[in-house]
Amino acid sequence: MKVAVFRKEHFNAAHRLYNPAWTDEKNDAVFGKCNNPNYHGHNYELIVQLKGEVNPETGYVYDMKVLSDLIKEQVLSKFDHKNLNLDTEEFKSLIPSAENIAVVIWKILREKIDRNYDLIVRLYETERNFVEYDGN
Amino acid sequence: MKVAVFRKEHFNAAHRLYNPAWTDEKNDAVFGKCNNPNYHGHNYELIVQLKGEVNPETGYVYDMKVLSDLIKEQVLSKFDHKNLNLDTEEFKSLIPSAENIAVVIWKILREKIDRNYDLIVRLYETERNFVEYDGN
Amino acid sequence: MKVAVFRKEHFNAAHRLYNPAWTDEKNDAVFGKCNNPNYHGHNYELIVQLKGEVNPETGYVYDMKVLSDLIKEQVLSKFDHKNLNLDTEEFKSLIPSAENIAVVIWKILREKIDRNYDLIVRLYETERNFVEYDGN
Amino acid sequence: MKVAVFRKEHFNAAHRLYNPAWTDEKNDAVFGKCNNPNYHGHNYELIVQLKGEVNPETGYVYDMKVLSDLIKEQVLSKFDHKNLNLDTEEFKSLIPSAENIAVVIWKILREKIDRNYDLIVRLYETERNFVEYDGN
Amino acid sequence: MKVAVFRKEHFNAAHRLYNPAWTDEKNDAVFGKCNNPNYHGHNYELIVQLKGEVNPETGYVYDMKVLSDLIKEQVLSKFDHKNLNLDTEEFKSLIPSAENIAVVIWKILREKIDRNYDLIVRLYETERNFVEYDGN
Amino acid sequence: MKVAVFRKEHFNAAHRLYNPAWTDEKNDAVFGKCNNPNYHGHNYELIVQLKGEVNPETGYVYDMKVLSDLIKEQVLSKFDHKNLNLDTEEFKSLIPSAENIAVVIWKILREKIDRNYDLIVRLYETERNFVEYDGN
Repeated sequence: MKVAVFRKEHFNAAHRLYNPAWTDEKNDAVFGKCNNPNYHGHNYELIVQLKGEVNPETGYVYDMKVLSDLIKEQVLSKFDHKNLNLDTEEFKSLIPSAENIAVVIWKILREKIDRNYDLIVRLYETERNFVEYDGN
Repeated sequence: MKVAVFRKEHFNAAHRLYNPAWTDEKNDAVFGKCNNPNYHGHNYELIVQLKGEVNPETGYVYDMKVLSDLIKEQVLSKFDHKNLNLDTEEFKSLIPSAENIAVVIWKILREKIDRNYDLIVRLYETERNFVEYDGN
Repeated sequence: MKVAVFRKEHFNAAHRLYNPAWTDEKNDAVFGKCNNPNYHGHNYELIVQLKGEVNPETGYVYDMKVLSDLIKEQVLSKFDHKNLNLDTEEFKSLIPSAENIAVVIWKILREKIDRNYDLIVRLYETERNFVEYDGN
Repeated sequence: MKVAVFRKEHFNAAHRLYNPAWTDEKNDAVFGKCNNPNYHGHNYELIVQLKGEVNPETGYVYDMKVLSDLIKEQVLSKFDHKNLNLDTEEFKSLIPSAENIAVVIWKILREKIDRNYDLIVRLYETERNFVEYDGN
Repeated sequence: MKVAVFRKEHFNAAHRLYNPAWTDEKNDAVFGKCNNPNYHGHNYELIVQLKGEVNPETGYVYDMKVLSDLIKEQVLSKFDHKNLNLDTEEFKSLIPSAENIAVVIWKILREKIDRNYDLIVRLYETERNFVEYDGN
Repeated sequence: MKVAVFRKEHFNAAHRLYNPAWTDEKNDAVFGKCNNPNYHGHNYELIVQLKGEVNPETGYVYDMKVLSDLIKEQVLSKFDHKNLNLDTEEFKSLIPSAENIAVVIWKILREKIDRNYDLIVRLYETERNFVEYDGN
């Protein structure tokens, strides 16, 4: 009997969409105002989903307090109130699009969460633009 | 490495649930107040989901600006501030239930979006009633 | 010791913004797509606010069940799943703009609620457009 | 052509996470403040999802009014404004974690809904903690 | 130049509406299912509003981190994951209605916040029922 | 008969809280992670409220399309997808706290909106931190 559990966290960050292999003109054409050289930013809402067996002794699939702490230690400590392009190792040479941020977070958490749990990461960049990565 | 991306748009429309093959009594019995002859209406919230490969040059699965424009041109221009029963070709002979609206929107977008992308349409008729269609 | 209490309800309705004293051209120019002759519609969210003394025997300013029933009987029964222009007495000769709907609801409720309570009506036509009327 | 339909309902309940096979110390260590002997409570948001064929005569997968009434009769009547540990048969010997509540609701509804419909239950304990059960 | 600043926090609690001066019959008649002897519960959303001068050196009216910590220390530590009737001094002889909870929180915070700031407390018991107290 | 009308818009921006008259140590002590030299960012939600007479010919207090366009031209064009500290005149020597941003937006709009309308600006920096300025 497998149940999916979800924990929602948030972080605020600055970023810029920019491909250094391209000219400024091409960056402007592709990324528009998201390419502002001085950055812009977002309130990112992050939902981490784990699917696994319910432990009959606790009624838990995964302790939400433990999951929240794990997200804070592994993800929020790196990205919250940061400039994703300048302040993080992960996006030094990777464009910090919502898609890439979700994949990076998924990989960080996948290392820390037992493989018995299926892992899905959903990331809201705005209320109207969001992404989801399940490792496939 | 496939990521799902989501774009949320909205439109406002009037509609009426009514089956012309039935008597008024049967329409009333089945559709209740949704069968009001003078129509009622909703703020429809539409979420379009595409799943595909992340383009390493952009970090994008699909340019959200392009997707937003596509939804506006193909869907909102037809349905926003319209009477679905009277003002649209799609619902001249099809009951504009949330289910049917979602399927119609899915078919409209499926024609315009490369088959490499999986497409799912979610439609909120109200905060409490919503539907989703994935083409299967 | 006065506390304000709020009750949220909703209704779905069709409407059209149209001034019969004007030409169709002027109606189009002023009301745009809101002037669609076949109507469009909304999920209206209604928040009724009463401010009054807390009854020490109940801890209530006003019984929320009673207020909810009053809104249903006096407001939702008239407007829910209706065409505001065609199906209601109130908007036979009054443009059913959000402003006018809020004023009409305020007047309906003001008749039924003791004057010891201050009354404010807030009405969301969409998440982005809303109005509030306090009787002044 | 299968479409998923969703109905959202809510209930308010008190509960306590406590395993009677454990010492109080172990209960405190595992469940923390959720183990408060005098209970705490939540506004539970429940989303019931059914996937099935669209009926061409109605445009419906399932009448949302019928689904809402079914949830009220089978679920809300048991759990709304109740103490899950003390007032329900279901949680007399089962820890009322969000996971277990979702499974219990799924089993209750599965008995009442034709097997032609896939059934998924999502339960929000808070905006930040939620679970989903699909029967697998 | 005065600006109002708002901080939103939440807590989960069990409660029961019951007047010990009344018979059980009268309690049932007045409070209905909110009078369940074994309690029910809510996710309370609390919004604390302070209005004051903007400090030109910081751009702040009040440091939101300080306000958040104050609310946690003075309010959440008392009420979060508690039974308001059984576990708190404040509601030993006061009915824990939303109105009374808001007034109690206002009085607790008023003692700790400089009188140069106007203070308003808003409390959501559910999304549909909420209250506000401004001290007048 | 005066009604308040509200229009909600949003913009995304990077910013940093930093007082150049202070040492870095004092900036860190006062602003914490909001002082990150490389900036962070937010999705700002902006609600503009106008209170005025209802025009009997239109049912409008103020045309919401005109108000939306005004906000886009006067506010969003300056701040959306910008670094508030680096890319704007307004915050060259003013700390871009939520309080100051709200006051700046109020002053910009006050110049463009007839004095017959009362003007209030509410700005959400996050869902949990927000501010409001009414000119007094």
